[in-house]
Formats: sequence, structure tokens, C-alpha cells
Amino acid sequence: MSAIPFDKLIVQEVAPRDGLQIEPTWVETADKIALIDALSTAGFTRIEAGSFVSPKAIPALRDGEAVFQQIARQPGVIYVALVPNLKGAERALASRADELNLVMSASQTHNRANMRMSCESSLAAFGDIVRQVKGSGVLLNASVATAFGCPFEGKIDEDRVIAIVDAYREVGIEGITLADTTGMANPRQVARIVTRVLARLPAAALTLHFHNTRGLGLANVLAAYEAGARRFDAALGGLGGCPFAPGASGNICTEDLVNLCDEMGIPTGIDLEKLLTLSRGLPALLGHDMPGQLAKAGRNRDLHPVPEYVLHI
Amino acid sequence: MSAIPFDKLIVQEVAPRDGLQIEPTWVETADKIALIDALSTAGFTRIEAGSFVSPKAIPALRDGEAVFQQIARQPGVIYVALVPNLKGAERALASRADELNLVMSASQTHNRANMRMSCESSLAAFGDIVRQVKGSGVLLNASVATAFGCPFEGKIDEDRVIAIVDAYREVGIEGITLADTTGMANPRQVARIVTRVLARLPAAALTLHFHNTRGLGLANVLAAYEAGARRFDAALGGLGGCPFAPGASGNICTEDLVNLCDEMGIPTGIDLEKLLTLSRGLPALLGHDMPGQLAKAGRNRDLHPVPEYVLHI
Repeated sequence: MSAIPFDKLIVQEVAPRDGLQIEPTWVETADKIALIDALSTAGFTRIEAGSFVSPKAIPALRDGEAVFQQIARQPGVIYVALVPNLKGAERALASRADELNLVMSASQTHNRANMRMSCESSLAAFGDIVRQVKGSGVLLNASVATAFGCPFEGKIDEDRVIAIVDAYREVGIEGITLADTTGMANPRQVARIVTRVLARLPAAALTLHFHNTRGLGLANVLAAYEAGARRFDAALGGLGGCPFAPGASGNICTEDLVNLCDEMGIPTGIDLEKLLTLSRGLPALLGHDMPGQLAKAGRNRDLHPVPEYVLHI
Repeated sequence: MSAIPFDKLIVQEVAPRDGLQIEPTWVETADKIALIDALSTAGFTRIEAGSFVSPKAIPALRDGEAVFQQIARQPGVIYVALVPNLKGAERALASRADELNLVMSASQTHNRANMRMSCESSLAAFGDIVRQVKGSGVLLNASVATAFGCPFEGKIDEDRVIAIVDAYREVGIEGITLADTTGMANPRQVARIVTRVLARLPAAALTLHFHNTRGLGLANVLAAYEAGARRFDAALGGLGGCPFAPGASGNICTEDLVNLCDEMGIPTGIDLEKLLTLSRGLPALLGHDMPGQLAKAGRNRDLHPVPEYVLHI
């Protein structure tokens, strides 16, 4: 295992993008901006604020330009945009995104289903985007979707994941996200893959993206953290359900993750009380209950009143 | 850390007792028996099958005698009964429970609220029960409730937990359960306490009982397992919500735990397909959705059909 460079666990908040993208309820642009602005003052250093995909493909996020143009950018916060192709990259650059996040699946079948092209075509498109972005000062990250398992193909060869990481770096992409797109990862597998990837790139360049589809999201975070990973995607309220598992939860929940860190003494720099206030506003915004648990249970320090009868025992 | 004596993770199924006790819907005695009988052939070696508490206190479990008398006992399965006092112990012995599980809270306030007596009175009652049971061949276990935190008092001194474990052993109780009654434990705390307790008793005598109230149940299991613990309570479907955190989930979910073990290569001896079938029957029995996630998401191996359009890319 590589030496652990720092203790702090960096949370990249993805609710405004990955969280909202499959929501059936339209969220007004002003509400998206208000959410991002509130997150910007809660201690995050990275927020995935929107995407520049086809409005037909993801209508919930069709207002990417307006969002990026109107948010109140805080110094020290990196505002990330998901982009699927060169056209999306151009839109994101025009809207002053600080970082572009590209996506390809480790699984050929999943990449064809999600991106409607082969992995080879995706990698070629990455090269075009790198050339477009080079010299602009905008950061580049690329995600390996289905890195821990594919809902169509099942197991994904770990050597293939490593080869894709190498291919991303060779194309000229600095940041890598390993994404457990449909919540199939387990902690032993996570520790193995993270250890291999951190032999190739520094912890500051690696993000882990877990879904809690089968209840293992936070256990996978701890396994990755113990193996040296320091940056994790999470969504307020646990937003972002998986279309293949209705009723199972989506992204790991930011406030549940920050609570875990607070209780274990792992610094995050994030204000958990602010998060809870924001999370408790999501059901009114989206019209349904959230999978996150801390917003319902409260923190450990939120003590319950002692029943009256106890005083007489 | 003490040497790990064996790899197998033993799951004690507690749905018929801890799972059902706060359900508002009455479950017919025949349905309880059918559930226990089905669990008995799914690979469990321990099932907490009922309790012998006052029918006024826990009306949902008022049929303890009928349940214990009518279940089809399988060889190799230990049927455990929760008992709160000497009278409960006498009823459990008369109903041929294989093991009695006693309960006291580490927190004085919680013990007064839950057991309506001081910890000192609880310990004295344990002594009476040990004398009653001695020589009968029936096993004795006692739980330290709120061992990782109390909803009334907050943090629990770890030395107090250790002192209670010692007191239980001195009274003559073989088995110890450390219970995170309202889901306040974190993995570092769990590793610390489990390591200390396993310096005092063998892994075969220790059970960990986690709730998933704040989403940390399975992460806590892994921390305990890595520290040498091998026996864990879990409830089918994640039954057993906490009355202090409505909407947050209850006991850790048996099928989610067994799936974690299957994926990580930790043997349990439990048939996950049978569990899933049983779990998927719970909403019809109890009239509400379950917090467990695997029953909704399916196993990793349950692949999804490839969309038609993918074939043409």
C-alpha cells in the first residue's frame, strides 16, 4: 500500500448533477442555483454542478448553461461539469466550468447502452476533448463507469480497469474516478483495485464513486480510505437512484458519510448541521422521501428526552 | 489483536423476536412458526425465535409459548428466547428454549427506561436466573444494550462496557452480546471495544448486534470481523425499526449481510436465495416496505437484459 499522504477525506458533492438527473420532477433553475450556492458555503471544495448532455437525453439537466452562469462561485470551490462529448465540452468551457468530467464504462455493453458508442470510440472522443481543453486552465477528470461490476455483463476484469486508467492518463487526463455505477462493489475488491491504481497515480488524482444499491456504500468508502484513497463522490440525501434497482438507494449519502467521518475523527471540513438542514429540504423540493438515514435519525449528539417515569425508578 | 480462530461468520437471525417486537400489525402464531421453520432450513445455526416478556409490555410477542412449542426444530439450530426476568426464564425453560438471552443496558438511564430498574437490580436478577438455569443444559447469553452509545446519555464509557462484560462472566453467563441498540456505533470504536472484549473471552462467546440507524451497520460488522468477532445478529428484511428514529432502518438486514459475505468470500453457510424469497414475502405479511436493499436490487449475478438498441451500435 502506498504511503497515505493526508488524513482529510474530500467529499465531492454530486447531488446537483448525478442526484437530479433521473428525478422525474423538474427542479427550477433558481432552485438548482440556490442548492449549489448553499452547498458552496457548507465546506465543500468540489461540487458537480451540472452536465452538458443532450437536453433530449437528460431533460432534468437541460439548464446547464444557466446554472453555471448564475451560481455564486466561492473561492476554493471547484465546480465540475459532466460532459459526454466534444460538443458538451465546448458548452462547458463557454459556461466557465472549472473541471470537466468525462465518462466511459469499463463494460463494452454498458458503454454502448449509456454512451451509444464503443469504448474505442469513447477513448477517441476523449482525445478530441483533451486537445480542445488543453491550455485553457480547465481541469480534466474521466470516470470509469461500471469499474466494479456491470449490470449487463456481471464481473469486470480488474486488469481491464487498470488498462483503462492507463489509457486515460496516456490521453492526457489528470483525474480518474472509479465508479461503482450500480452498487456491485465489495470492500475486498475495492481495497485491491484502489491499491493497484494508487501505485500509478497520486491519491489527490483519484476519486471513488460508490452507490449504496446493496447497502455497502459506506463500507466501500472505508475500504478505499484504508487503501489510501481520499476523494469520494456523495449526494445530499443519497439522491440519484439506480434505474435498474427501483426502491434501492442511489449515491452514497453525503450527510451519512460526513457523520461517519465526524464520529471516526476523519476530517472533512464540511458543516454537518448545514448539510442536514439542506437535506431535510429535499423531500419538499422533489416530492418524495430520501434514502439518506442521518436526516431521519439525527446525529448521535441529538439526545432524546428522558421519559418522565424513569425519574421515579 | 487476538488470533482469528476461524473464517466463518455466524449469523443469528433475530427477525422473529427483535424484528417483530415493535411491528404494529399482529402476526399470527402460525405465520411466526412458518417463518421460523423456513429460516431453520436456510442454513442458520441460531435463531432468536421469541421472547417471554409481559404480554402487556410487548403484545406482538405474547405467543412465545405457542411458538416455541410448535416450531419444527432442526438439529444443529439453537433456538434462543429473550427473557427479561426470572419469571420469563421459567416460561422459556418450560417451553424448551435452547438458550436464554438476558438484557441490561450499559446506560443507567436506558436500563431504567427499558427494563424499569437500575443496572444493579438487573445484575442481581441475572444471578437469580443463572441459579435457576444451572444444570438444565440450557445456554445463557446476556446483552449489553447501548454498549456503543445511549440515546439519553450519549457517549458510554468504554471501561464501563468492559466492566459489565466482566460482571456478566462473574455471575456465570457464558455468552455476551454487545448491542448498538440505536445505531450509534462507528467502526473505529467497534474495533477498539471488540479487541478489548476478545482479550477476555473467545470469539465463539461474543455476538455483535448492530442497527443500521445511521447507515453504518455493515461497516461496523466488517470492523468487528476484522478485529476477530465472528457472530452477528441480523434481521430478515432489516426488520426492527428503532422507535427513536422513525424512517431510519432497524437491525442490519440479514440478506444484505449474507450478500456482503458471499461477495467477499466469507463463508456463512446460509442460502441467500432462500433468504431473498422469505424477505420478499415480508411486505405482504406486515403491510409495509422493508429497509433491506438486496431484496429490491437483486444480487450482482442477477444480470439485466441488454437493451435492443445496443445490438445495433
